[in-house]
Amino acid sequence: MNTKEIDRLAREWLLEAGGIIKQEVAECKYQISEKTGPSDLVTSVDKKIEKFFAKKIAEFFPTHQLVAEEDDAHKFSTFKGVTWILDPIDGTLNFVQQQANYAISLGIFEENHGQLAYVFDVERGSVYSCIVGEGVFVDNVKVERLRVDPSLEESLLIMNFGIIASNYLNLADAGRRARAVRLYGVASLEMMAVIVGQADGYISRSLMPWDIAAGYIMAKELNLEVTRIDGSEINVLETGSLMIASKEVHQTLSTDYIKKTEIN
Amino acid sequence: MNTKEIDRLAREWLLEAGGIIKQEVAECKYQISEKTGPSDLVTSVDKKIEKFFAKKIAEFFPTHQLVAEEDDAHKFSTFKGVTWILDPIDGTLNFVQQQANYAISLGIFEENHGQLAYVFDVERGSVYSCIVGEGVFVDNVKVERLRVDPSLEESLLIMNFGIIASNYLNLADAGRRARAVRLYGVASLEMMAVIVGQADGYISRSLMPWDIAAGYIMAKELNLEVTRIDGSEINVLETGSLMIASKEVHQTLSTDYIKKTEIN
Repeated sequence: MNTKEIDRLAREWLLEAGGIIKQEVAECKYQISEKTGPSDLVTSVDKKIEKFFAKKIAEFFPTHQLVAEEDDAHKFSTFKGVTWILDPIDGTLNFVQQQANYAISLGIFEENHGQLAYVFDVERGSVYSCIVGEGVFVDNVKVERLRVDPSLEESLLIMNFGIIASNYLNLADAGRRARAVRLYGVASLEMMAVIVGQADGYISRSLMPWDIAAGYIMAKELNLEVTRIDGSEINVLETGSLMIASKEVHQTLSTDYIKKTEIN
Repeated sequence: MNTKEIDRLAREWLLEAGGIIKQEVAECKYQISEKTGPSDLVTSVDKKIEKFFAKKIAEFFPTHQLVAEEDDAHKFSTFKGVTWILDPIDGTLNFVQQQANYAISLGIFEENHGQLAYVFDVERGSVYSCIVGEGVFVDNVKVERLRVDPSLEESLLIMNFGIIASNYLNLADAGRRARAVRLYGVASLEMMAVIVGQADGYISRSLMPWDIAAGYIMAKELNLEVTRIDGSEINVLETGSLMIASKEVHQTLSTDYIKKTEIN
C-alpha cells in the first residue's frame, strides 16, 4: 500500500470532516435519534461523516474495505487487503450534550497489520497520528512517554462506569489503590490519554472495532500493553473488552485483581 | 464594596496567574510534593499562585479576608466584611499528570453573600465568570441553559469515584438510571459542566470552601439546586458534600435514592 499517499489523504479528509462537524454544531441543524435506548444515540452528523469517508474511500481506493459504526458501511468479519476502521463520532453522547470530548477515530490495516492511525479531537483541534515505525505524534510533535513504568499506586486509571459500579473483577478495588480514577465517556480519547501519558491505564468493556482500532495501533507502536481484560490478544474486528496500560500497571491489575477473581 | 473595581482587578490577576502557570509548565521547573498521601499533591505552582493573590489582595484591599487552599492564607471560620475564597490550582493531580483539566477558582463574598465568581480553565483558556445579578458568562458569552429541567433518565451526571465504587446512598444505582456518568477529578470544572449544561448534576463529598465557592455563587445565580447531599443549605466556609443539579434531577436523586437509604 502507498502509505504516504494514504496518510496525506486521510489527514485531508479528517480535517474536512472536522470542519463539517463544526459547521453542523454552529448551525444547530442536526437530528438526534436513539439506537438501542436513551443512552445509545446517533446523530445525522455521525451518518454524514461516515458517508463522507465512504465516498472518498470508494473514489480513491475502490479495492479498500470500510468498517464503520453507522449504517453506510459493510461489516467485514475478516481482514482482507486494506481495511479502514472508522468511528465518525466516538463519544456521540458527549458530542450531543457537551459539544466537547468527542473524536473521529480511524485505523487503517493491511491484512491484519495496523499501518496508520488517527484520532481527531475536533473541539480541541488536536490530531493524534501514527504511521507504524515512525512513532506517534500529537499535532506533529512526537510523543515521548516520560512516565515510563509507574506503579499502580502512582497511576491514574480510566475505567468505565459499569466496571467501577459493579467492582467488576475487583477493578474498583484497584482504582482505590491507584492515585486516582477518571471517566470521560469516549474510548478513543481515553486511549489517547494513556498514549500521551495523561493516564497510565484504561479499562473498558464491550468495545467495538471502531472504538479501539486507532488506539490499538498506537499502543503497539509505543510498546504499551494492550490486551483484552483477561490478558488475551485482541482481534480488532471482534467486539470485546480492553485493557491498555504501561507494563507494571497492566501486570498488577492482572495479577492482583483480575486473575484473583477468576480463581475464586 | 466596589464590585466593578474588584471585577476588573480579579480578571486581570486571574489572567496574570494563568500566564505564570503556563510559564512554569513550559519551563518544567516546578516541584511536586505530597500533602496527606500519594493522592494528595501540591506543587510549588499552587503555592506561587496563592502568594501572588495574597500579595495583590493585601496591597489593593487590605481589609479583605483571604481563605485559600495552601499555607499562605489564614483560615477564617466566619464571614466578615469581604472574603476572597481561592483555589490557586483546583485539580492539582490533573495539573501534574495531564497539564489539563485544572482551574483557578475564586469566589468573593460580602458578609455571607456571594457577589463575584470566577473559574479559569487555564489550559483551554476559558474564563467562567459571574457578577451576581448580571448572570453567568463563559468568555463573555452569557450562559443560557437550554436543557432546563431534564429527567434523570435524560441526564448526564458527574460523581466522584468513592460514591460510585461504594454505591454511597444508592447513588451508583442512580447513575445506572441516568443517561451516563462522567468523572473529571476537578470540582470547580465539574460544577462548571453543570453550570453550562454539559452535565445535569454533580455529586461529591468532602469538598473544601475553595472547591465550591465559585460554583456555588454561579449555581445560585442560575437558580440551580445546590445543597449538601442531604438537601441542607451549604455554609461555604464549612467542609462537606455537594449536590448541584437542575430541579428535577436534584429532586429525583434525593427522593428515589438518598432519602430511601436514610430511612432503611
